[in-house]
Amino acid sequence: MNPTAKLHTSMKIALAQFNPIVGDLTGNARRTIQWMERAAREGADLIVFPELSVVGYSPHDLLDNAAFVDAVAAAIRLIHSRVPKGMGAIIGAPVRNPNPIGKKLLNAALLLEAGQPVQTTAKMLLPTYDVYDEYRYFEPATGQEPLVFKGMRLGVHICEDMWNLEEYATYHMYDRDPVAELVAQGVDLLVNLSASPYAHDRHHVRTGIITTLCRRHGVPFLMTNQVGANTELIFDGDSRVHAADGSLLACAPSFQEALIYWDTASDAPCHVPAHDRITDLHDALVLGIREYVDKTAVFDDVVIGLSGGIDSAVTAALAVEALGPERVSGITMPSVHSSEGSVSDSEALARNLGIAFHELPIRDAVNAFEGILKPLFEGTPFGIAEENIQARSRGVLLMAVANKFSRMVLTTGNKSELAMGYATLYGDMSGGLAVLADVLKTDVYALARHINERAGRERIPVSSIEKPPSAELRPDQKDEDSLPPYPVLDEILRRYIEERQDEGAISEATGHDRAFVRGILDAVDRNEYKRKQAPPGLRVSVKGFGGGRRMPIVAGVNRAAIEEMMNALKEESTA
Amino acid sequence: MNPTAKLHTSMKIALAQFNPIVGDLTGNARRTIQWMERAAREGADLIVFPELSVVGYSPHDLLDNAAFVDAVAAAIRLIHSRVPKGMGAIIGAPVRNPNPIGKKLLNAALLLEAGQPVQTTAKMLLPTYDVYDEYRYFEPATGQEPLVFKGMRLGVHICEDMWNLEEYATYHMYDRDPVAELVAQGVDLLVNLSASPYAHDRHHVRTGIITTLCRRHGVPFLMTNQVGANTELIFDGDSRVHAADGSLLACAPSFQEALIYWDTASDAPCHVPAHDRITDLHDALVLGIREYVDKTAVFDDVVIGLSGGIDSAVTAALAVEALGPERVSGITMPSVHSSEGSVSDSEALARNLGIAFHELPIRDAVNAFEGILKPLFEGTPFGIAEENIQARSRGVLLMAVANKFSRMVLTTGNKSELAMGYATLYGDMSGGLAVLADVLKTDVYALARHINERAGRERIPVSSIEKPPSAELRPDQKDEDSLPPYPVLDEILRRYIEERQDEGAISEATGHDRAFVRGILDAVDRNEYKRKQAPPGLRVSVKGFGGGRRMPIVAGVNRAAIEEMMNALKEESTA
Repeated sequence: MNPTAKLHTSMKIALAQFNPIVGDLTGNARRTIQWMERAAREGADLIVFPELSVVGYSPHDLLDNAAFVDAVAAAIRLIHSRVPKGMGAIIGAPVRNPNPIGKKLLNAALLLEAGQPVQTTAKMLLPTYDVYDEYRYFEPATGQEPLVFKGMRLGVHICEDMWNLEEYATYHMYDRDPVAELVAQGVDLLVNLSASPYAHDRHHVRTGIITTLCRRHGVPFLMTNQVGANTELIFDGDSRVHAADGSLLACAPSFQEALIYWDTASDAPCHVPAHDRITDLHDALVLGIREYVDKTAVFDDVVIGLSGGIDSAVTAALAVEALGPERVSGITMPSVHSSEGSVSDSEALARNLGIAFHELPIRDAVNAFEGILKPLFEGTPFGIAEENIQARSRGVLLMAVANKFSRMVLTTGNKSELAMGYATLYGDMSGGLAVLADVLKTDVYALARHINERAGRERIPVSSIEKPPSAELRPDQKDEDSLPPYPVLDEILRRYIEERQDEGAISEATGHDRAFVRGILDAVDRNEYKRKQAPPGLRVSVKGFGGGRRMPIVAGVNRAAIEEMMNALKEESTA
Repeated sequence: MNPTAKLHTSMKIALAQFNPIVGDLTGNARRTIQWMERAAREGADLIVFPELSVVGYSPHDLLDNAAFVDAVAAAIRLIHSRVPKGMGAIIGAPVRNPNPIGKKLLNAALLLEAGQPVQTTAKMLLPTYDVYDEYRYFEPATGQEPLVFKGMRLGVHICEDMWNLEEYATYHMYDRDPVAELVAQGVDLLVNLSASPYAHDRHHVRTGIITTLCRRHGVPFLMTNQVGANTELIFDGDSRVHAADGSLLACAPSFQEALIYWDTASDAPCHVPAHDRITDLHDALVLGIREYVDKTAVFDDVVIGLSGGIDSAVTAALAVEALGPERVSGITMPSVHSSEGSVSDSEALARNLGIAFHELPIRDAVNAFEGILKPLFEGTPFGIAEENIQARSRGVLLMAVANKFSRMVLTTGNKSELAMGYATLYGDMSGGLAVLADVLKTDVYALARHINERAGRERIPVSSIEKPPSAELRPDQKDEDSLPPYPVLDEILRRYIEERQDEGAISEATGHDRAFVRGILDAVDRNEYKRKQAPPGLRVSVKGFGGGRRMPIVAGVNRAAIEEMMNALKEESTA
């Protein structure tokens, strides 16, 4: 048996790894038309765009606006009217649900051909968990039929429709298997339109799923994914074609727009570059920064508060890779509690990165606040209020520079800090984008080393990597005075937040006693109110703080009382 | 015909208008048991708690945690073991979906009797729109059967299950009608367990729906609703019993916990107090403040920045009603741009309300910042940066007082300002709860007048009501220099945000030209990033800024280009 069962027709298919801007219907339509024309010039018979390519992912509640939905329909008509003659284009867009009962929209794929009626199919499995809210807007399709293009039967389906495999279903299993149902109707090629965001190791997960499906059904598989970033979500692309035996025949480069081609008659293998976890993380964050700044299109430049520590150093280095050194500036804002290294390491970083650098000492502002507050604070000891005045004075200065010179502040806090509330609201949390909000501290270290290795020289000063982490808000303060060592903390946070384990399971798996684990989990819960007011953060894990993790702010989970209740019930039932 | 068709059994039913704390399983279970015991003492046969009474509404992603779901099951067992002998109790709780396919939970109502197996039914219609995310967690039940208690057939269903009426379906219609399906199986009484939040006029909407259902089906209807507030959602209670002809037989007071009784043999009417829109709004906000402060249980007291304007005055007056004057303090923070009234009106307000009052002039802090920034800002004109330094210096001072004395800052911005971005992030937006975040400016005026009328004397200084609104961040600044008059603005905002109309429809309905309307809508869109970082706000309209309105931050809706595209297509199709 031929391992790459050939299609009975030969055809050149373009995979459009496309980067739409959410809601920019006219811009997305214009660029869709340009890509169709380019693919036609380059000899493609068919071009396949990703899920919701006309509106970007996710348009969220723009879809609740009837005028917006009308405009989407117009954009589809415009694109249809411009499909090059003889060519087919599959695009993704919301369309009105023809049934008056149920959600008002379908999440559809449309096959457009010049002068031909539109062939439409719609998504059956609607992710409604984590960052996904699809059932908020869409009615699931009750079935799918292959779309036919030039005699070729295309098993077109959308993103989640292919994710119903036991070994990959984290949240729940669905009662339908769209891919199997399409195959049962006879298809030459499975075609998946995705808007599948990046998370650690997502490339390998996709490969696992698609390989499984190819082998199970003996059909080649083509997947186009969005690329780019929209607020917190980063789309890595990773579009590809697998042969019927699962082997890779075509693959687009990750983290960039690409228009690649696959000839259905070809079974030449494609060699995908190695996907290293930290390299991908680095590339994802660089893309996320660039996209946030460029797509908001309000500010060209960013400004970052540099503390001499590793978080601000890594943030600045990533920003420079995203935007170039001339669009990044660093400001160090020493106080009386700052170590010498806070300024000198920041200076060294700025020199290494080639960015503008300013020093704005906060002493006079802190003194002014303490003077104003003296009548009220007289006789009280130095505490959180005074620590926060320092952090907030820095926030005011950074925002003033940002406002004056039309820059965006990037915040530098990492996921471990954000989890524990080890950050000051309206202080170091002030800014437009939280670059490391989903990166645990131990991964920040890995990123720092990676950045230096990649550059082949010191970009992040080694002293920033090696010094013990400190907020420097009081004399001789160290993170480890308030927090467990980061490797211990991060393991517990990862299990609680990303794997959604609780006290008992974490204690058992890590060997730390329940009270210790409980202390950390309670701190995470207690600081939900801070994260509510945090700037958006780039999501890189399966569970970031953001749209994908919706915890109540006012809540009273009492783990000690719950344990007591459960023990009492256990005793009762065994008594 | 008897207008109030009698039940064939006579029974005393307790309506438990209960206020659970989200996630506080042991506390909620303990209080559930106390209420059951009290109802038993007072002769009730049956007590009916609201939807999700064991966990509060909404537990959000606590439900994603398997250990939490185990603990809920334990809490149910505990409650069941304590149901008074001879009595029935209907509670609301998530239970595991017995089907391995589909969402892991059901949103259930459980009828508990001492020593008897539990009778369970589950919600069929799962609201997944606005503030509701139920399909994120729950599988819809495929059907419901009446629960039988002492020979009485109870048509138990849950909240949204009764809301599938054409004239009330804003988002979509469902393909099932649980109430009709229950009635078709024969029921003596319809029983609805709700967690139905307050919004303007919600009392009348509920009356309309229940009256319609009673008359359509000729069956009496009992509804218990949660009361209290959880972060942004305010539950007004409004539990009631309607006779088969729709007339009201029992009604609980709104905005407070209540255990009321209805004897199924009685057809004595109940006179519900008038529900005036502004009175309800006032009571809802007072409850929302009290609950947020008391349920977070971190701070006893609040502190409010007083500007002399109407927003801070109304916020302070509401806080005093919620917490008492001894738990509220006001701080005025004049600058060189402040009018004389900013201090004197604040002082008058504090005197009227009987709250502590301090004056902290910001001049020294502003000067210090300007001094620090001088090397960078030299030669630039006074602008947004300088305005924001003032607002942010106030934010730092307020937060310092809050941190030092363990108080929570209440922010004072209204919905109109928040919509237009007429507020400073990390300045006047700093705080734990945004009291007026869902109250349009024109309603803030109505509240001010209501507060004074209700008190029979001046609590809000008349000069605060009558002076033209101003941010006082530059000489002679007035809101109307930057914004349209509030009655005009609010009408457009209401249509855009609450009714989800867009430019064309709003222009047509209001007579304002499209460009003018577009300017306002674009400003609302552009300021999404500010609202992302706003503190939680109390929701009082059908669409607040918060969990119920999920707009993309990075987005590029270009209304001018869309209009052009649609006009071009129209011309083409008529050409």
